[in-house]
Amino acid sequence: MAESWSFLDTSEPNFRPLVVIELAKGTKEKTVEWFTKRIVDKKANGGAQLLVRPLVTENGDENIYLVGASDLRLLLGAETVGLVKECKDNSMRTFTYSSRKTFKDFTGDSHSFLTMAECQYIIKHELENLRAKDEKMIPGYPQAKLYPGKSIVRRLLTSGILVQIFPLHDREELKKLRHSWYGRVKVGFQPLDEIRRYFGETIALYFGFLEYFTFALIPMAVIGIPYYVFAWEDYDKYVMFATFNLLWSTVILEVWKRICAVMTYCWGTLLMKRQFEEPRPGFHGTLGINPITGKEEPVYSSIKRQIRIYLVSLPFVCLCLYFSLYVMMIYFDLEQWALDYHKENESNFSSLMLFVPSIIYAVVIEIMNRIYRYAAEFLTSWENHRLESSYQNHLILKVLVFNFLNCFASLFYIAFVLFDMKLLRQSLATLLITSQILNQFAESLLPYWLQKRHKKRMKKRMCSLKTDVDLSLVEQVNLERDMGTYLGTFDDYLELFLQFGYVSLFSCVYPLAAVFAVLNNITEIYSDALKMCRVYKRPFAEPTANIGVWQLAFETMSVISVVTNCILIGMSPQVNALFPDSKMDLVLTVALVEHLLLAIKFIMAFVIPDKPRSIQIKLAKLEFESLEALKQQ
Amino acid sequence: MAESWSFLDTSEPNFRPLVVIELAKGTKEKTVEWFTKRIVDKKANGGAQLLVRPLVTENGDENIYLVGASDLRLLLGAETVGLVKECKDNSMRTFTYSSRKTFKDFTGDSHSFLTMAECQYIIKHELENLRAKDEKMIPGYPQAKLYPGKSIVRRLLTSGILVQIFPLHDREELKKLRHSWYGRVKVGFQPLDEIRRYFGETIALYFGFLEYFTFALIPMAVIGIPYYVFAWEDYDKYVMFATFNLLWSTVILEVWKRICAVMTYCWGTLLMKRQFEEPRPGFHGTLGINPITGKEEPVYSSIKRQIRIYLVSLPFVCLCLYFSLYVMMIYFDLEQWALDYHKENESNFSSLMLFVPSIIYAVVIEIMNRIYRYAAEFLTSWENHRLESSYQNHLILKVLVFNFLNCFASLFYIAFVLFDMKLLRQSLATLLITSQILNQFAESLLPYWLQKRHKKRMKKRMCSLKTDVDLSLVEQVNLERDMGTYLGTFDDYLELFLQFGYVSLFSCVYPLAAVFAVLNNITEIYSDALKMCRVYKRPFAEPTANIGVWQLAFETMSVISVVTNCILIGMSPQVNALFPDSKMDLVLTVALVEHLLLAIKFIMAFVIPDKPRSIQIKLAKLEFESLEALKQQ
Repeated sequence: MAESWSFLDTSEPNFRPLVVIELAKGTKEKTVEWFTKRIVDKKANGGAQLLVRPLVTENGDENIYLVGASDLRLLLGAETVGLVKECKDNSMRTFTYSSRKTFKDFTGDSHSFLTMAECQYIIKHELENLRAKDEKMIPGYPQAKLYPGKSIVRRLLTSGILVQIFPLHDREELKKLRHSWYGRVKVGFQPLDEIRRYFGETIALYFGFLEYFTFALIPMAVIGIPYYVFAWEDYDKYVMFATFNLLWSTVILEVWKRICAVMTYCWGTLLMKRQFEEPRPGFHGTLGINPITGKEEPVYSSIKRQIRIYLVSLPFVCLCLYFSLYVMMIYFDLEQWALDYHKENESNFSSLMLFVPSIIYAVVIEIMNRIYRYAAEFLTSWENHRLESSYQNHLILKVLVFNFLNCFASLFYIAFVLFDMKLLRQSLATLLITSQILNQFAESLLPYWLQKRHKKRMKKRMCSLKTDVDLSLVEQVNLERDMGTYLGTFDDYLELFLQFGYVSLFSCVYPLAAVFAVLNNITEIYSDALKMCRVYKRPFAEPTANIGVWQLAFETMSVISVVTNCILIGMSPQVNALFPDSKMDLVLTVALVEHLLLAIKFIMAFVIPDKPRSIQIKLAKLEFESLEALKQQ
Repeated sequence: MAESWSFLDTSEPNFRPLVVIELAKGTKEKTVEWFTKRIVDKKANGGAQLLVRPLVTENGDENIYLVGASDLRLLLGAETVGLVKECKDNSMRTFTYSSRKTFKDFTGDSHSFLTMAECQYIIKHELENLRAKDEKMIPGYPQAKLYPGKSIVRRLLTSGILVQIFPLHDREELKKLRHSWYGRVKVGFQPLDEIRRYFGETIALYFGFLEYFTFALIPMAVIGIPYYVFAWEDYDKYVMFATFNLLWSTVILEVWKRICAVMTYCWGTLLMKRQFEEPRPGFHGTLGINPITGKEEPVYSSIKRQIRIYLVSLPFVCLCLYFSLYVMMIYFDLEQWALDYHKENESNFSSLMLFVPSIIYAVVIEIMNRIYRYAAEFLTSWENHRLESSYQNHLILKVLVFNFLNCFASLFYIAFVLFDMKLLRQSLATLLITSQILNQFAESLLPYWLQKRHKKRMKKRMCSLKTDVDLSLVEQVNLERDMGTYLGTFDDYLELFLQFGYVSLFSCVYPLAAVFAVLNNITEIYSDALKMCRVYKRPFAEPTANIGVWQLAFETMSVISVVTNCILIGMSPQVNALFPDSKMDLVLTVALVEHLLLAIKFIMAFVIPDKPRSIQIKLAKLEFESLEALKQQ
């Protein structure tokens, strides 16, 4: 095989391994040769013009390859993906190689100009855009069909020849990042810019949101504490707290959009043009012509997809929601039965029995959540969305609705059917605190511990062998390829979303929820940081300009919380005492107040601009300049 | 003065007068000379490179000038304003002179390629963009200050030297348009494309919306008729009607967006890039640097404007609203007093007295509306908005809120305070029908009659003189300059908006409202068409891609109507009879249904895409092409 490498400049002095490609063991040589040739081949020949080196492991396997690129190649790639960088006049502009001299920090090489995460993103983009020319199949694998324009990497992935592609950690950088992020005990903001440099915008934005959200909860927590300390039960204080909460939650969500715009403007992603999205790997269909690009690709009828969504997925989700409610009702029956049993017998056994329904319910909920998650993934994949983004949105929506019901249905039932405020407060506290503890454990600490054990074993194994290859790199690659893959920010946002629900939906009953949320989030930042730095493979950076569908989810939650809080206040005995003669007046007053609050919310959301004036001016300036440039032409 | 015209090619064989400029009588010659020279001067010298001819009127005054342009100039202007035209491959593209050959209908001259309305829009744009160079003032008028970059035409207008600029009618075209629009009695759609060719997109879109809205009301009207004919009073039928109405109104507003996108795509305005907006004529401030353009222009602190809006305008509007409510309460007191008086006396005089409060109230409302309109215009102008669009939005919002209250407050009072459904139905019918008749009369027929009288007198005067100038053109210009100016679609949309309120807010009480609305709109189309073609000066075409803030206004109205209809149904005796034991259950049920309906509305608005798939694909294709073109560079 060595001959085929001859045209590669193997003596390239500064080959920096950026991305690891792991092929399946026993991949045919023919295939490997063809694939690596395509990667290093010139752009003009349809290649990616990157650098590839095989990684020689202890047992001589050659199924792992390191990919890098020359500085010039990376800069050209930065132009292709449309990176936006800061110019010398402090404005943000789309990078082009020809105008490279006008950019700040440009010194001639890509090392200092592009972050490692950006380089890896560029390489990933180039690899994914490596397209079949006239090959009808992957050489050596006749069953893996290709057609002109099909992404080779995606076909290799779906046919199992390519096991994974992942970016390498940079140990020096990671050490520095760890230190400034969570290495020392300090009060202050997270190093968001450094996080973004290392992990990319999507993850930095999550941590930014987590931090912002924590700070935003502090006023609620501060106001909530005296309610607990002095055991305030006056209705007017509760009304004040709830009103403050409702308006506050609108304000923080609107202000977040502004902060997000400022951050992503500085990161360049606010201005980044959306690239044309290729079909997601799992998408299938009959070969046809894409009406947008005019190129050959699988097409799938949109009407068929709509039918699948509305006639299969939607009824299925509704059925699941119904089933979840049904299980909840059984739980309440069991609970009642256990209470009755305890009252009758009053033995040690019977008091133990009191906990049984809750435990069973908790276990059942967890099982249902997992099964549902699989079902939702299967269904959304079966809906055959062309774009990854649309797949994600549909999946998020499905999971969100079910999780919302699972978490809050019992609380709604306690509040609005049983009218038991004491039980509501208890359940709320129990649910909030246990879910927080469980999450922190299952999400970060457990994987961290497993990872540590694995690492130790690896180290031992490594030391037992004595080879003269660059041990540290081989060791690193072997270690990282077995690390878990970070599956995206979905679960992290979901956790925050449910927490927001606990804090806002019943805020007037349990003002202390915000305090627990703040405490949890402070540790959450640390455990999530630990998870990102220590437990998982480095994820590819994903440029993004906002938190997407989650903004909508949080806003919806805050609208629902207006309704629940108004009802709760209306049900409180203190408010009831104000309307001794007519329950009618009470209900009408509550309804009126609710509508007023909702109207104020919408007006506030409408009046507060989504982007601060300074950013608006900068964007308008860029638009004006491009208009002027067009006129000059 | 004749010498200065020498460099103008007065022998240009095909000078087509497009736009009329009327200067104040007795404008200094120096000024006229300077202004006309700037208009005809080369672009390179800072001129507009248009053609100007004085119009010699019967009394020899030279204060009216006709502006035209060569074909080449108009095509270059079309590129400057960014017109979007259809290409030979049926896609819409921004017109550029260099790619002119690829456009459909391009035959070499602008006559067949650009519509007259577009030519006039281009000339208006060029005139408004005629900017001061190093002049410190308008020659001959030291008080009319100029600074580099200030629009000369705007300064001339604000200092009263320029009386008006208006586009000429094209009598041949107008005749054809009139014929196909309302000249013959026919059932069918309006010739929207022809309207757009003649009057531009804003007006065509209004007529498109009027037509669409009328068609959309037909199902409501059809369902409403049997309620009246068979005097249905069953609650279930009312609930069905109201539910249908509420969902229907959401659907029609969403579908309108799609239809609007299809229309404006074909007209090219959907793709038209928003030009950088210059400050509106009335805007003033200290001379500073615009942060967007980097050029000198008056600047005004945004904080000062916010203070004026929130601390002066907002309280003033609230005060006016309060005052309007107060007047309404007086009216109801008077009404009660008249009733009592009639009961006591029962004379002819007393039964006449019954009408007095209504008449007084109607007159007072009309007076308040007018005064408020002036106040709103004054306040909005005092708020000193930089952009015409932002001025318009603030003005519309102010007028909208006040008109809403004035029109509907008494109905709300009757419905939700007096609980008198019979009176509500009566008042609704009276208000709807009288306002429709009055509007049609005051808006179109009266001005039409006045205009006709004026025309006759003009003709007589013209015929008495005998000059050898092109009488028909002089006559036409003299006639048109005295015609009223069409002040934009504001009042027309407002009328439709209030009608939508009458139809939807209390639809379950008075299903026949839709029938009257449909009947009114059919005649409204004709009377508005008459108004546009016969009564007013031809307005300048305004490219637009949607109906702007009115979409929001209509959507808000449809949300409010969910609330009102639910309450009305909840108050009906039939529904009350369903809950004989507990009024509480009734109110809770109504509230639940209302929230469900609102939720369905929002979900529907979210699920229905704003643009049809075909348009989405076309837009995506254009975006893809521009991305590819960027990559090729």
